[in-house]
Amino acid sequence: MNQNTVPLYQGLLNHKNSDPISFHVPGHKNGAMFKSVDFGTVSFNDLLRIDLTELNGLDDLHSPTSIIKEAQHLTADLYKVKKSYFLVGGSTAGNLAMILATCNPHDVVLVQRNSHKSIMNSLQLANVRPVFLSPEFDYESQIATNISYETVKQAIKDYPEAKALILTTPNYYGMVSHNLNEIIKLANSAGLLVLVDEAHGAHFILGKPFPTTAVTLGADIVVQSAHKTLPAMTMGSYLHFNSSRIDIGKVEYYLQVVQSSSPSYPIMASLDLARYYLAHISNKDKEEIIDSIENFRESLARLPQINLIAQKSDLYQADILKIIVQSNCALTGYEIQEAFEKEHIYTELADPWNVLFVCPLSEVEDYSTIVAKVERAIKHVPTEIRDKQKVDQSTPSIFTLAITYEEMRKRKTCKIPLRNAVGEIAASSVIPYPPGIPVILPGETITNNHINMLLTLKESGAYFQNNPELWDKGIDIFN
Amino acid sequence: MNQNTVPLYQGLLNHKNSDPISFHVPGHKNGAMFKSVDFGTVSFNDLLRIDLTELNGLDDLHSPTSIIKEAQHLTADLYKVKKSYFLVGGSTAGNLAMILATCNPHDVVLVQRNSHKSIMNSLQLANVRPVFLSPEFDYESQIATNISYETVKQAIKDYPEAKALILTTPNYYGMVSHNLNEIIKLANSAGLLVLVDEAHGAHFILGKPFPTTAVTLGADIVVQSAHKTLPAMTMGSYLHFNSSRIDIGKVEYYLQVVQSSSPSYPIMASLDLARYYLAHISNKDKEEIIDSIENFRESLARLPQINLIAQKSDLYQADILKIIVQSNCALTGYEIQEAFEKEHIYTELADPWNVLFVCPLSEVEDYSTIVAKVERAIKHVPTEIRDKQKVDQSTPSIFTLAITYEEMRKRKTCKIPLRNAVGEIAASSVIPYPPGIPVILPGETITNNHINMLLTLKESGAYFQNNPELWDKGIDIFN
Repeated sequence: MNQNTVPLYQGLLNHKNSDPISFHVPGHKNGAMFKSVDFGTVSFNDLLRIDLTELNGLDDLHSPTSIIKEAQHLTADLYKVKKSYFLVGGSTAGNLAMILATCNPHDVVLVQRNSHKSIMNSLQLANVRPVFLSPEFDYESQIATNISYETVKQAIKDYPEAKALILTTPNYYGMVSHNLNEIIKLANSAGLLVLVDEAHGAHFILGKPFPTTAVTLGADIVVQSAHKTLPAMTMGSYLHFNSSRIDIGKVEYYLQVVQSSSPSYPIMASLDLARYYLAHISNKDKEEIIDSIENFRESLARLPQINLIAQKSDLYQADILKIIVQSNCALTGYEIQEAFEKEHIYTELADPWNVLFVCPLSEVEDYSTIVAKVERAIKHVPTEIRDKQKVDQSTPSIFTLAITYEEMRKRKTCKIPLRNAVGEIAASSVIPYPPGIPVILPGETITNNHINMLLTLKESGAYFQNNPELWDKGIDIFN
Repeated sequence: MNQNTVPLYQGLLNHKNSDPISFHVPGHKNGAMFKSVDFGTVSFNDLLRIDLTELNGLDDLHSPTSIIKEAQHLTADLYKVKKSYFLVGGSTAGNLAMILATCNPHDVVLVQRNSHKSIMNSLQLANVRPVFLSPEFDYESQIATNISYETVKQAIKDYPEAKALILTTPNYYGMVSHNLNEIIKLANSAGLLVLVDEAHGAHFILGKPFPTTAVTLGADIVVQSAHKTLPAMTMGSYLHFNSSRIDIGKVEYYLQVVQSSSPSYPIMASLDLARYYLAHISNKDKEEIIDSIENFRESLARLPQINLIAQKSDLYQADILKIIVQSNCALTGYEIQEAFEKEHIYTELADPWNVLFVCPLSEVEDYSTIVAKVERAIKHVPTEIRDKQKVDQSTPSIFTLAITYEEMRKRKTCKIPLRNAVGEIAASSVIPYPPGIPVILPGETITNNHINMLLTLKESGAYFQNNPELWDKGIDIFN
C-alpha cells in the first residue's frame, strides 16, 4: 500500500478547510467557543506540549491529590454534588462504571428501553437481569420520549426485588419528563438506586427555561457528556456522585478499570475549561443565548418545507439548544440533512421524519446567513403533508429479555431473513447510529414492530452500525 | 469556591512554560517529533476544528468504511497483520477487549505475574481462573524481567485445560526474552491462544537492533501503545489481530463495549500520523537515532554517581530507546529522579535502584546540554556501592489465587496492619505507579516477600495509587 498518505488526518483537514457550520456535538463548535474564553490560542505543537503524563506536580486522575483533585472539586462545587469525576472515556466509561459498581450479577434492574447502547452493554457486562420500561411515544415529533410515572410505579410493584432504576434523561432530542422529580422520589422511597445517563444535559444547571436536571433531584449517580453541550473535547465527560447508599470506593475502582491508565491531559484540561465556561454564564448571557436561538427558530419556522417541533408538550420539557426540524415535504429527515450538508451545514442527526440541530451554548450572530443557506438547500422541494406513524399500542410497557445473558453465551446462533424473524430471539443488537439506541437487543423476542421500524429506517436512509449483512443475509438469532 | 481558576489547565501551562526536557511518554516528546513531519502546524482552535464527530465522510471507528478503515488498513499493512484497530482508550481498552473477547467465565488462563493492572482488571471482569507465572529476576538491574521457557512449559503441563497464555513483552524497562519465539511456538502447539500486551514495543518492527516483536512471531492478538514510543497522542494505541482461531466479531464487539461511542478524532488522527512517521524511518534514520542515543549513553556512563544497565544480558534483549540508570551513590532512584527534575529533566519512572529514561524515536542533537544538566543534578553526591536484593527463591514460579473472583464478591473485608498480614488473603491491589504493576493482587495470599517489597518501595519513596490508609490503618484482607 502507499504509505505516503494519511487518509484520516487528511480527511479531517479537508472537512475543516471546507468552512463547515456545526450544529452537532462537540459543544465547542469547531473551536469557536474558546474564543470567548480568555486563555489565548495555543499552537498544535503547544497542544502536544500539554499532552503530558503523570509527572510530579501534574497529579494522577486515578488517585488525585493536587491539580486534578482541585479541578474536580470545583466541578462538584458548581454542580452542588458530593463528588465529581473527570471522565476521559466519554459517558460510555461513566455508564459502565456506574452500573458495574452498583449492580451484582443476577440483580434485577429497571431500565429505560430507549437507552444508549453503552447502558445496554453495561447490563450485559454486569450480567444483571434487566426489566425494560418502554418510553412514551410523541405522535407530533414521532420520537420516543421518556418513561411515565405510571410505568415506573407499576414496574416497582411487579418487581419489588429490583435494585436500581436506570434512566436516560433527556433523550437524544433534549426531551425531559415533567415528572422526573416524582419518578426519582418514587424510586428513592422504594429503596431503588437511581442511576442516570444525562449525557445531553450537562448545561441544565443553568436553570429555567432549561429542563430539570437529575443532579439536583436526588439521583445517586449522574453521567454527563461535557463534550456534547459544553465546550469540552470529545470523550470529556463528568460523573457526579451524590449518594449515601453507594460504596464510592467501588465507583472509583471501576472508573480505573474501564478507563485508560494514561488518561489524556488535553481532554482533562478541556473539562476544566468547560466547567469554567459554564460557571461564567451570567443570567444576561443566558438570556442572550436564548434570544439568539429564538430568533433562529423563528426564521426557520417561516420555511414551508419544514415544521418546527414545539418546545412545550404534555409529554416533555424541551432543551432550548436542540431544534427539531420536521420534514413538511417529500424529503425524509436523512435527505434534508444531506441537502443541508451540501451547504456545509452539519447537523447532529436525522431520523425518518426529523433533523436535529444542536445549537451552541453561546450567542451566535450570523443566524441569518445560516437560515439563507438552509432555505437555499430545500426551497426547490414542493411541500407535502407526510403520513405519521400511530402510537404503537402493542408493545408492552414493561418486559424482560427472553433469555438471560448467561444463557446467551451458551446458545448457538444463525442468521434468518428479516421477514421470517418475528417470534425468534435476537442474538445481536441492531443499532442505527446516531443516535446509538438499539432497535433490537440481544435476548429480545423479535416483533412485527421491530421489523417495521427497521424497514422504515432503512427505506428512509438510516445508517446502521456493524450490520453489513442484515439486509441480504438476515438477522442473528439464537437457535 | 473560587470558580475563576482553572487549576488543571494552568498546571499544564506552567509545566509547559518551564521548558521541560522529556524522557517520558508520550512518544511525541512535547510535540517536538511532529516538527520533522511535514504537516505544518495547526493552532489550538484549529485542533478543535478537527475534534469532530461521525459526520458524513468522516467515517465511524466502530463500523469503519472510509477514511478510518483506510488508515487502519495502512497500519495493518505496515505491521503485516490481518487487521489493525485504532484504540482511543489506550492499551487499557485493548487489553480489556482482548481478554473479554477470548476468555469465558471460569476459563483457566496462564498470565505473566508482572503484568499491568489493566490485564489484572480484565481477568477479574472476565471472571476467569488465572494461573500466574513468575518472571525471572535480574540481579544486576534489580528488575523483574520476563517469564522463562521452562516456566511456560511446566505451566502447560500442570494446567492442560488452560485456554490462553497472556504475556507482557517487553516489560516496562524494554526487556524482551531471548526465547519469545520459542515460548509463542510452544503455546501455539499446545493449542493455547497467545495474547500479548506489547504496550512498549510499537516501534520494534523497525528490526534489529530493536528486540523481537510478538507481532511477527505468531501471537493471536498484540496490543501496543502508539503513544509510548511513537508520536501519537496519549490514549492512542493499536490492537493487531493476527489469529485464525479467534472470532474477530467478538473482538470488535468488545472494542465498542469498552471504548467511547464518541471516539476522539485528534487521537485517531495522531494514530494515522504515528503510523506514517514509523513507515518513513529509513535504515539511515534508524542508524542516526541509535548513534545519537549511544552517544548519550556513553556520556552518562562517565558520571560516577550512576551506572548504566547493560543493553545485553543472558536474561533479555534490550530496547535501545530505554536507558536504565542505576544509583551508585547514597540516593535512591526516586531521589535521583527528583534531582533531575530540579534541572527540568523529566524521566519516565524511578524505582528504589534505578531511573528510566525513554528516549525519542528521533535523532536528538543537544544530548551534551542534557548530560551537563544531569551531571549538575548529582555531582555533589558521594559515590557509594549499594546493597542489592538477592534473587528471591521462595516465590513459586507457578501459582493461583487463594480464592476465585466470585468468592471475592461474597466475602467481607477488613483492614489489618501490614506487619500482621502475612498468610492473609489480600482484598485489594497495592499498586506503585508508575509502572502500574500490582505488588499485591486481590485474592493473593500475602507473603513476607510482599511485605518486604512494599516496605522497600515505601522507604525509598515510591508513590502508590489509591492506598492512602495503607501505612497507618493497614491493608485490605478478606475475613
